[in-house]
Amino acid sequence: MLCLKVPTDGAWAIVAMRDLDGILVDHAHCELKAASNSLSLAARYPADVEIVQALTNLAREEIDHFQRVLSALAARGRQLGAPPIDDYAAALRRAASELPRAPLHSPLVDRLLVGALIEARSCERFRLLVEALEHTQARRDLHDLWTDLFASEAQHYRVFVDLAVRAAGGDREQTIARLDWLAGAEARIVVGLASRGEAVRATIHG
Amino acid sequence: MLCLKVPTDGAWAIVAMRDLDGILVDHAHCELKAASNSLSLAARYPADVEIVQALTNLAREEIDHFQRVLSALAARGRQLGAPPIDDYAAALRRAASELPRAPLHSPLVDRLLVGALIEARSCERFRLLVEALEHTQARRDLHDLWTDLFASEAQHYRVFVDLAVRAAGGDREQTIARLDWLAGAEARIVVGLASRGEAVRATIHG
Repeated sequence: MLCLKVPTDGAWAIVAMRDLDGILVDHAHCELKAASNSLSLAARYPADVEIVQALTNLAREEIDHFQRVLSALAARGRQLGAPPIDDYAAALRRAASELPRAPLHSPLVDRLLVGALIEARSCERFRLLVEALEHTQARRDLHDLWTDLFASEAQHYRVFVDLAVRAAGGDREQTIARLDWLAGAEARIVVGLASRGEAVRATIHG
Repeated sequence: MLCLKVPTDGAWAIVAMRDLDGILVDHAHCELKAASNSLSLAARYPADVEIVQALTNLAREEIDHFQRVLSALAARGRQLGAPPIDDYAAALRRAASELPRAPLHSPLVDRLLVGALIEARSCERFRLLVEALEHTQARRDLHDLWTDLFASEAQHYRVFVDLAVRAAGGDREQTIARLDWLAGAEARIVVGLASRGEAVRATIHG
């Protein structure tokens, strides 16, 4: 799906369905982190006004999504709570930092590709949540929430890839090659997290 | 003005008028930092859904303001550029960390009061910019921008104070006493920065 190289293990959706509150809390924090990350990239790489504009538009959308998830939690009588540990994004950023760079290559390209991969994996997981909720009437609100956000994450994925190409001076071929390499690293991270067995957590990327 | 204890030195507006591009770049980064700070407070202090909702609303507004300043820069043919050094906010946060805390006192209260003071000072400086631009026709767009944002910052100031009272369990008296102490520290920081003479920078809080 999108650029992903391995599908999520079936066990993940079972763990997620057992703890929908936990998934919602983690999802809310993922949106906050995504918004913060977009703002931090805009501040650190201010040279291209179109990229800065697009990143701050993304941040605003992530805040909207966060508030939708917050409302879903409130409707279930739940508070937001502290952010669960997020090994996935940290491992992915570490992998990106290991990619060799040509002298003029901007680190922004790889940061944007990491963003693209996180969106792609979120998108895939939201589809699994939607499928798991398909045959229940009880959680129609969550089904609709994740259906909407599934579409948004797919669109954000494309925005991040296009911005990465732009940040690479328009070199789509080289950018897609880096995305492909990073997607391989992402697949290994996801398989590694899934192989923890009982330790699989009810988190969007756990 | 608002809770501020010293007015800005007249030299600041002169320096600012000499480098409007510099002021706009710094202003844009201030809005980005304010948005990031609100998101980070929401993530770190998730217990009260009303505070989280209000902080993320503030972040969205700061992003809107950032994009307005970015457009003003673009209209002048200027890029955003790197963020200037911001001694002011760091010094204010350091001062807040030195305030004695009762055992049950949430550090969120002081972080929100720091936010209130930054908004109050921005508000005062935007008024100085508006006044300095009052008698020119050439920069009507900047005059209108800072007139609007002057009103927004005053409103954000009140939101931060109200949230701080809420985070202090409704204890307005104690919260205003802490704000008053912090406003004294803020005044010393502002006087210290102004006393650098030639080193006064064209930044919103410089």
